[in-house]
Amino acid sequence: MLAVRFPGHDPRVETAPVESGTGRSDAFSDGVFAIAITLLVLEIRPPEHGEQSLVDGLLDLWPSYLAYVLSFVTIGIMWLNHHEVLRLVRAVDRGFLLVNTLLLMFVAFIPFPTNVLADFLTDSDERKMAAFFYAGSFTAMAVVYNLFWHYLRSRRELLEPHVTDAEVAAITRSYLLGPTVYGLATVAALVSAWLSVAICAALSISYAVPALRWRLRRR
Amino acid sequence: MLAVRFPGHDPRVETAPVESGTGRSDAFSDGVFAIAITLLVLEIRPPEHGEQSLVDGLLDLWPSYLAYVLSFVTIGIMWLNHHEVLRLVRAVDRGFLLVNTLLLMFVAFIPFPTNVLADFLTDSDERKMAAFFYAGSFTAMAVVYNLFWHYLRSRRELLEPHVTDAEVAAITRSYLLGPTVYGLATVAALVSAWLSVAICAALSISYAVPALRWRLRRR
Amino acid sequence: MLAVRFPGHDPRVETAPVESGTGRSDAFSDGVFAIAITLLVLEIRPPEHGEQSLVDGLLDLWPSYLAYVLSFVTIGIMWLNHHEVLRLVRAVDRGFLLVNTLLLMFVAFIPFPTNVLADFLTDSDERKMAAFFYAGSFTAMAVVYNLFWHYLRSRRELLEPHVTDAEVAAITRSYLLGPTVYGLATVAALVSAWLSVAICAALSISYAVPALRWRLRRR
Amino acid sequence: MLAVRFPGHDPRVETAPVESGTGRSDAFSDGVFAIAITLLVLEIRPPEHGEQSLVDGLLDLWPSYLAYVLSFVTIGIMWLNHHEVLRLVRAVDRGFLLVNTLLLMFVAFIPFPTNVLADFLTDSDERKMAAFFYAGSFTAMAVVYNLFWHYLRSRRELLEPHVTDAEVAAITRSYLLGPTVYGLATVAALVSAWLSVAICAALSISYAVPALRWRLRRR
Repeated sequence: MLAVRFPGHDPRVETAPVESGTGRSDAFSDGVFAIAITLLVLEIRPPEHGEQSLVDGLLDLWPSYLAYVLSFVTIGIMWLNHHEVLRLVRAVDRGFLLVNTLLLMFVAFIPFPTNVLADFLTDSDERKMAAFFYAGSFTAMAVVYNLFWHYLRSRRELLEPHVTDAEVAAITRSYLLGPTVYGLATVAALVSAWLSVAICAALSISYAVPALRWRLRRR
Repeated sequence: MLAVRFPGHDPRVETAPVESGTGRSDAFSDGVFAIAITLLVLEIRPPEHGEQSLVDGLLDLWPSYLAYVLSFVTIGIMWLNHHEVLRLVRAVDRGFLLVNTLLLMFVAFIPFPTNVLADFLTDSDERKMAAFFYAGSFTAMAVVYNLFWHYLRSRRELLEPHVTDAEVAAITRSYLLGPTVYGLATVAALVSAWLSVAICAALSISYAVPALRWRLRRR
Repeated sequence: MLAVRFPGHDPRVETAPVESGTGRSDAFSDGVFAIAITLLVLEIRPPEHGEQSLVDGLLDLWPSYLAYVLSFVTIGIMWLNHHEVLRLVRAVDRGFLLVNTLLLMFVAFIPFPTNVLADFLTDSDERKMAAFFYAGSFTAMAVVYNLFWHYLRSRRELLEPHVTDAEVAAITRSYLLGPTVYGLATVAALVSAWLSVAICAALSISYAVPALRWRLRRR
Repeated sequence: MLAVRFPGHDPRVETAPVESGTGRSDAFSDGVFAIAITLLVLEIRPPEHGEQSLVDGLLDLWPSYLAYVLSFVTIGIMWLNHHEVLRLVRAVDRGFLLVNTLLLMFVAFIPFPTNVLADFLTDSDERKMAAFFYAGSFTAMAVVYNLFWHYLRSRRELLEPHVTDAEVAAITRSYLLGPTVYGLATVAALVSAWLSVAICAALSISYAVPALRWRLRRR
């Protein structure tokens, strides 16, 4: 039952499922997602006094607002997906916790490229590079997310018994959209920063729309 | 039981209630509220050395203290309301999680207008604009909060069965006060920043008083 | 069972215990404590390049380390007390949630006076004022903590039935130490900043020692 | 059942196990770990405009990326270990809560030495000192972690009854690796900053590899 902490021990003990339920992984992951998403606001700095009117200063911050919304929604959707995957998990092992920590490392990094995008989106010389870095960071996060899911689906004893092969295959397919579209947005940044940002935004919207569309039809 | 993640799948599966209970939404939302409310203190910067005495420097920060208290109490009350609504919720679906994320995006934004208000409240040229932006942000948050409640009350299968129509109608009525009063405070900012701030403060106090009044009467 | 949100409603409904258990108040409070305590590190800024050697720069930051340790331990003890009180609570009402939010507002403020103390402790002209503000903030937090406990003990229906009058009286007595000693430290700051800081530190140590002393005796 | 809060009371009451289960300690500790790990990103500041191209500016931040990854993984592993120890704990007492708070104080401090390392790793005069401070902070954290475990294992009534002496001894042995290797990295910093950083990185990798190796072999 006890997982040992450092190399040199019996590997069967080390990587056997160490815990049923996902309570504390949930709590820690939720914490990191919640903090990363809330730190985004720290990159929006109030205008200086005197340089221009406050109203102009606030309007000139539009790249910050745009970057805030885009990153908030993206991290929010990433949390939703993480949330739903963890509901399929019956037990966690040491390897899962490591892969989860790796994923959180990419999630917690997002405030930095958000900051870079907001700072350079109005710089006509550098905005392509800023969008490249921004979409590239999302691509890396989406790739690691697929790795995270790959780890779980190749160890079916960690998943709830009621999860069918068809469901696993459907999830696997749906998750490939992330790296594909963000990868496309990264390449597109070399042509146009706006195109890149538009592709990132479109993915978020395409994710939200079906739920809302069904809502409307239902009334 | 499994919610799929991206468009192109059977919408009945996609938006069926995905989860009974609200445990992890609670945890994530509580995290965002707790972080947003605690980040408010970061906007209060210690006085510089030498310019003036420390006691004068600390006293001159009164707009920061005022903005801190007002935003803390407002986010705190928003949390209380969110908290009470979630206690009426039996199950959540994808659409709920999206609307909840939207609400959190407005809550997590509050430290920025708080910062702006604190920076410009002593600037006689710009304080009206700062109060307009501040009260406007609260108005937007209150509108989204009503949207959030509207989503829930128009899908009664998400609410606990014991919740009556009369209770839903009472909540709906009580929530309209928020956008109305903050909207009024936003318009009032065009006349006077102090009036706008006073209206925001009055709403918070009017919220707190009944509970305390009853406490006193009871003794 | 439903608490209404705004004034003008039946106050009996409004302030009746709204919830058995303290789960989500715990989570929100723990979040604020955990964030406030962790934000303390943000006030420690790395030395500049070139001005002096890094080792001198790091040593010169001793007021920041001292303020970090003192505030961390104080907030930590505050959390322990809050934690233990909530274990005695059977149900929460609206008034409790408001008083709890007020307490959290003072806890979340602590990083600011910590920052001020660290900045001015080596300024011989201003260090008394900095210590006065620091100990004064602790005094205010301790007073609000007593208010928080007063609210609970004057509504015994919120406490677990097994809690005896003798226990309530013992807690009430023990809590008076906080405002008394911090009040003394605030007054002492007018004479000497070091004395004030030493009194704050002594209270933390006096709190920790009995548990450890018993540990040693027991072996 | 009631733990009193200040000295002068019956020490048997004071340090008896105050609580079965570790729910709220878990939540608070998870919060601090999650926040400390997420604050790491705040030390990565976007390049300035104009000084150099954005791509060069982003590449020049490699010490920040390195320090981010190293600290993130280290705090993540520390969380995993903390997580696994708490699963062996049946009940907590006041002394445990104090030792846990002490541990969290060292964990929450890590963003500062991370910041120092990132700032000075390219400064050929100071990088040894920066690595010394960085590895030294990890050493201190690992020592306190051993203290934390020592507290638990010398009070077996706090551990679950199923935990055997052999398991306790195995954990004790495995935990000694931390202070040893980080201590070595601290001494190595006096010779070479790169060697010191490499030793810290090697410890993290050696921790992760067994779980992954077994994963590969298993397929």
